[in-house]
Amino acid sequence: MTARMGDYADLARRLGVDALAIVPGPNFTRMTGHSFHSHERPLLILVPAEGTPAALVPNLELRSFDLLGFEGKVFDWRDQDGYDHAFTALAAHMPLGSVAVEGQVMRVFVHHAMARAWPGLEIVDAEREISGLRRIKSADEIATLERAIAISEAALGEVLDGVRPGQTEKELENRLTQALFAHGAEAHAFGPIVAAGDNSARPHAHARADYAIQPGDALLFDFGAAWGGFCADITRTVFVGHVTDAAADVYDTVLRANLRGQEITRPGITAHAIDDAVTAVLEASSYADRIRHKTGHGLGRAVHEAPYIMRGNDEVLETGMVFTDEPGLYRIGGFGVRIEDDILVTETGCRALTTFPRELTVVGI
Amino acid sequence: MTARMGDYADLARRLGVDALAIVPGPNFTRMTGHSFHSHERPLLILVPAEGTPAALVPNLELRSFDLLGFEGKVFDWRDQDGYDHAFTALAAHMPLGSVAVEGQVMRVFVHHAMARAWPGLEIVDAEREISGLRRIKSADEIATLERAIAISEAALGEVLDGVRPGQTEKELENRLTQALFAHGAEAHAFGPIVAAGDNSARPHAHARADYAIQPGDALLFDFGAAWGGFCADITRTVFVGHVTDAAADVYDTVLRANLRGQEITRPGITAHAIDDAVTAVLEASSYADRIRHKTGHGLGRAVHEAPYIMRGNDEVLETGMVFTDEPGLYRIGGFGVRIEDDILVTETGCRALTTFPRELTVVGI
Repeated sequence: MTARMGDYADLARRLGVDALAIVPGPNFTRMTGHSFHSHERPLLILVPAEGTPAALVPNLELRSFDLLGFEGKVFDWRDQDGYDHAFTALAAHMPLGSVAVEGQVMRVFVHHAMARAWPGLEIVDAEREISGLRRIKSADEIATLERAIAISEAALGEVLDGVRPGQTEKELENRLTQALFAHGAEAHAFGPIVAAGDNSARPHAHARADYAIQPGDALLFDFGAAWGGFCADITRTVFVGHVTDAAADVYDTVLRANLRGQEITRPGITAHAIDDAVTAVLEASSYADRIRHKTGHGLGRAVHEAPYIMRGNDEVLETGMVFTDEPGLYRIGGFGVRIEDDILVTETGCRALTTFPRELTVVGI
Repeated sequence: MTARMGDYADLARRLGVDALAIVPGPNFTRMTGHSFHSHERPLLILVPAEGTPAALVPNLELRSFDLLGFEGKVFDWRDQDGYDHAFTALAAHMPLGSVAVEGQVMRVFVHHAMARAWPGLEIVDAEREISGLRRIKSADEIATLERAIAISEAALGEVLDGVRPGQTEKELENRLTQALFAHGAEAHAFGPIVAAGDNSARPHAHARADYAIQPGDALLFDFGAAWGGFCADITRTVFVGHVTDAAADVYDTVLRANLRGQEITRPGITAHAIDDAVTAVLEASSYADRIRHKTGHGLGRAVHEAPYIMRGNDEVLETGMVFTDEPGLYRIGGFGVRIEDDILVTETGCRALTTFPRELTVVGI
C-alpha cells in the first residue's frame, strides 16, 4: 500500500463507510501514480477502512496494472465473460455494507454492478471528500501546473500575434491547438473555447467555421494545456482592430472584479467570501444583468474540482489550494468578456500562476 | 421536437419506461445536433414515452441551449442555489415511475439527484439500447468519419517517415499530435498510444519520455483524430531498422486474423461470429497465449460503442454499422503487434474505411 493509499483508508474511517471505491480519473491517478483508459470496461480499486485494498481489473490491463506495485488481491475479467462474476468474487472477498464513491467520476454502470454484487449496499456520493484529498497541492504539483500554464501562455501569445480580421473562430482554434502542442502540451485540459462577437456572450461557446471575425469584435479564448497530469485554465478577452469606449468600460469592470479576487484571497477566507467580493464588483456596475456564473473552481488534475468559488460555499481556503478567478459579463446578442487567472493560495495571501497580461488589448491591427 | 428526438420517445415506449434521460455525450449530440461541456453541472433532457420533452440546464448554458430550438419546458439552476430545486421542479412537471439512462455516460451524482427528486424511481441502465440508436450510420456520418480517418492516416504517414532510432515514445507522440492538428483534427479521439519494445506488449500503454527506440523494436501507434464529432481509430505496428523472422511471423499471424475479419463481414453475421473467426486464426497459431482482448468495438461519435465484436455477443450486423477489426498478440516482456482497421458493413459485405498500408513495414533506415 502506497503512502497515498493510506490517505484514502483514513478517509473511509472518517466517513464511517466500509470502503472507498476509486475508478480511473484524477483521484485514481493521484492515489496510484498511474492513469488508465476507461471506456466500457470497469476497473476499480476498493480501499477498505481496515485491511488490504483489492482491485477489479480488465484482463487486458493487467500488465499495465502491474506497474502500480499494487499489493492487494486483483480480480480480473475478460471481455468474453463479462465483469459480473469478477464483482461477485470481489464481494465474497471483501463483504461491504457501505461504500463511498466519486459521484462525478463513477458512471452508472459501475454503480449498478456494485449494487448487484453487494445486495443492500449503501452507495454514498463522497465526491467532495474524496476529491478533497487533492485540494492542497504539493510544491511538485504546483511546479507541474506552472509548466502547463507556461505552455498555454506561450501558445496564446503566438496566436494573438497572428489574429487578423476575416479569420474564422475555427481557424483560430486550430492555430491555438497547434501552438499548444508545439510548445509541449500533452493534451487539451478541455475543449478550447474561441468565440468572437455575439458568440463570446455564450460562456461555453463552440468555435464556428462560418463566422469571420470583424473589426470591433470581442474575441475570447478560454483554454489550457494539460501537462504531467495537471490542467491549466486561462481566459483572455481581446478586441479586434478597435474597441469602443462602452466595451472598454465593460472590460474594465470585469478586470476590477478579477483583481478584487486576487486582492482578498488569503488562507482562512471562505470560498463564499471570494465569490461575494468579486461578484459585488460586477453587481455594483451597470452591468449586473450580465452576470451568468460564479467566480471559479479549483484546478489541478481535473479542470473543475474543489474548492468551488461560489456564494454559499463555506469551505475555508488553505495554503496550497489553487482555484480560478474568472468573473465574466455577457450581453446576449452582444458580446462577452471573461478574464480568468489561476490563483495559488500562499501563506501570506495569494499568487497568480497565470501571468499573461490582463490590460485591455487590441489585436489584428 | 426534432425528428431524431422522436427516435428516443419510440425507444422509451419499446423499453416500457416512462422516459429516457439523456446527458451530454454522444447520444445527446446525435439527438440535438449540439454538444455541451459537462463537468460538475448536471444538464439533462428527459424524453417521455408520451408527451413533450423537458430539460434541466445550468443557467450559464441557457444561451447555448437556445441553439437547440428545444420546444419543451426548461428548468434552469444557478451555481449559487445548487440544482436540487430544479430537479424537484422537473419532477413535479413530469412525474415518472421509471427512467432509462445511458449507464456508461451518466455519472452517479446525476443518478443520485434523480433518485432524490423522484422517490422510488426505477432507474434502468439502457446504455445498449440508447447508444444502439447510433449504430447505423448515415451516408453523411460515414463521410464525416472518413474525413477523420483521412486526417489520421495523413498524420501517421508523416510521423513514420520521420522515425529514427534514439527518439523517445513521448517525442513521437508529440510529433503525431502536431501532425494530426496540422491536418485539421479537431481533437484526439482518445489519448494516443505510442509504444515501442516491451511497452508495445501493453495493449493500453502510455508513451515513455525515458525510453529511446532501438533497432529491432516493434513500434505501435494506436490513435485517431476526431472531426465533425466523429472518431477515427487506427492501429499500425511497424519495426524500427530491421525485423527478425520470428517477429515477422507474429506480424503475419495478426495480419491474417485482421484480414479474416474483413473477409467474413457482411450484413446478417453476428458480432460473435466475427470475433470467433478472427480469434480462431490467432488460436490456431503458436501464439495463442498472447491473446489479450476481443476483436473490436463499434465506432462513431464515441470511440468505443456498440456493436462490441466479441464472442457471446449475438448482435446481428447490419448495413451501415462501423466497427474496429483489431486483433493483437502481446508477449509480456517482449513485444506486441496490433493491426486495427475501421470497417463499414455494406450491403454486399464490408469496406475498410482505413486504407493505410498493412504490409510489414520497417521504418527509420
